Amino acid sequence: MKIILTNDDGIYSPGILTLKKELMSFGSVTVVAPDVQKSGVGHSITFSHPLRVRDVSINGDFIGYGIDGSPADCVKLAVREIMKEKSDLLVSGINIGANVGINVLYSGTVAAAIEGALLGIPSVAISLEISESSPDIHGAAEIAKNIIAHIINKELPRGTLLNVNIPHISKDKIKGIKITKQFSGDFDEHYDRRTDPRGVAYYWLAGTGWPKIDVVGTDMHALKDGYISITPLRYDLTDNAFLEEVEAWGWNK
Amino acid sequence: MKIILTNDDGIYSPGILTLKKELMSFGSVTVVAPDVQKSGVGHSITFSHPLRVRDVSINGDFIGYGIDGSPADCVKLAVREIMKEKSDLLVSGINIGANVGINVLYSGTVAAAIEGALLGIPSVAISLEISESSPDIHGAAEIAKNIIAHIINKELPRGTLLNVNIPHISKDKIKGIKITKQFSGDFDEHYDRRTDPRGVAYYWLAGTGWPKIDVVGTDMHALKDGYISITPLRYDLTDNAFLEEVEAWGWNK
Repeated sequence: MKIILTNDDGIYSPGILTLKKELMSFGSVTVVAPDVQKSGVGHSITFSHPLRVRDVSINGDFIGYGIDGSPADCVKLAVREIMKEKSDLLVSGINIGANVGINVLYSGTVAAAIEGALLGIPSVAISLEISESSPDIHGAAEIAKNIIAHIINKELPRGTLLNVNIPHISKDKIKGIKITKQFSGDFDEHYDRRTDPRGVAYYWLAGTGWPKIDVVGTDMHALKDGYISITPLRYDLTDNAFLEEVEAWGWNK
Repeated sequence: MKIILTNDDGIYSPGILTLKKELMSFGSVTVVAPDVQKSGVGHSITFSHPLRVRDVSINGDFIGYGIDGSPADCVKLAVREIMKEKSDLLVSGINIGANVGINVLYSGTVAAAIEGALLGIPSVAISLEISESSPDIHGAAEIAKNIIAHIINKELPRGTLLNVNIPHISKDKIKGIKITKQFSGDFDEHYDRRTDPRGVAYYWLAGTGWPKIDVVGTDMHALKDGYISITPLRYDLTDNAFLEEVEAWGWNK
């Protein structure tokens, strides 16, 4: 099996190296990730300047390829240039911080998996909820490995990817896996207005990013309830349920 | 009517000022846009540094607010800080360059409209196809005005936005409006590998971005066929059609 592994925390993040070790039991793993942290970049791509590909080693061991671009750039370059043959799987993660609800849209981790799906590769994004104690990356990587072992023989339809979120509680306290929907309602967020030493205002984005209401069946609810959430996502944004109504609005009269 | 107007080409782009004039016939228009060009940033948001809001004037006339962030940042700041009351409409554009097919995911213009919809405001993204001759911004702004006049009394469901693309042909040659789906298949793209004067490789993203096949009913097909395409989009990425199947994969055995 040929696996592409990427993330949005950068090629030196602990999440990617720990996950690489676990994934190597399935086949060859090629790491292609941003040079530096790229959280919140969403599905940005780079076309106004060219990209560089850099061999990255730690203590003399080759780790993978570092790119001076976004997670989606990494996937494009991996598929179109770096990998000589078609890949069987793309994994994006482990991201430190949940990618549920509205954060799905802002997430570089999810965008990388969307890009993989776009390019015809079965793709999975994996994120670990953040909390006050230090994240258990090893526990999360083991969970990720088990999930990937489970889906390896299944078939994801073209255009669909899986968004996996792991709650930040000890492994034996996790209640199981729930297949969920993306929470798409309102969320807790505001700007914190401050003034600099020259008296000029600046604005920090603040708030928990968590919803004001709790909706059963969503990724957010499952995570808060102690479950691993898996949400199947698609990148075709067409609102099919609303197509007919908008067609009936008499556009060409 | 209170309207927020933004774009991803920056506050000094001709598209935004021309559109502002047309929209002023509907009510007050507040322009909140990036300081500089932000094409291809997708739905990126800024939380690792704070944002500044700058009053922008041209020849002594106040134009709007310039932000050192992404189009989605502009919408968030406009809604959460700048606008004192709830807005009735958000318009993102006119973008120079079509946002159809896969480009919907990369587009800062569409991301701004998604952000508006997220925050509960009826939102429309407007893009003009690029061609070899200079773009007819005035013609496109007139078309945009007519489309907005048409939808002002309709109701967009919460969570839905409209993605409008205008073909780059003279106004009298446009065949009409088609309600379309986002093209989600394969597209023409590759990396152009070059070497710098020091012999080190770099990679330009290249290709037309247009699909290899033409699918009737999609945004791309309508545009190429001489129609204005309007695609209703939703930001809930859940693949509802696939939920049941993935649930049946026996996760908690």
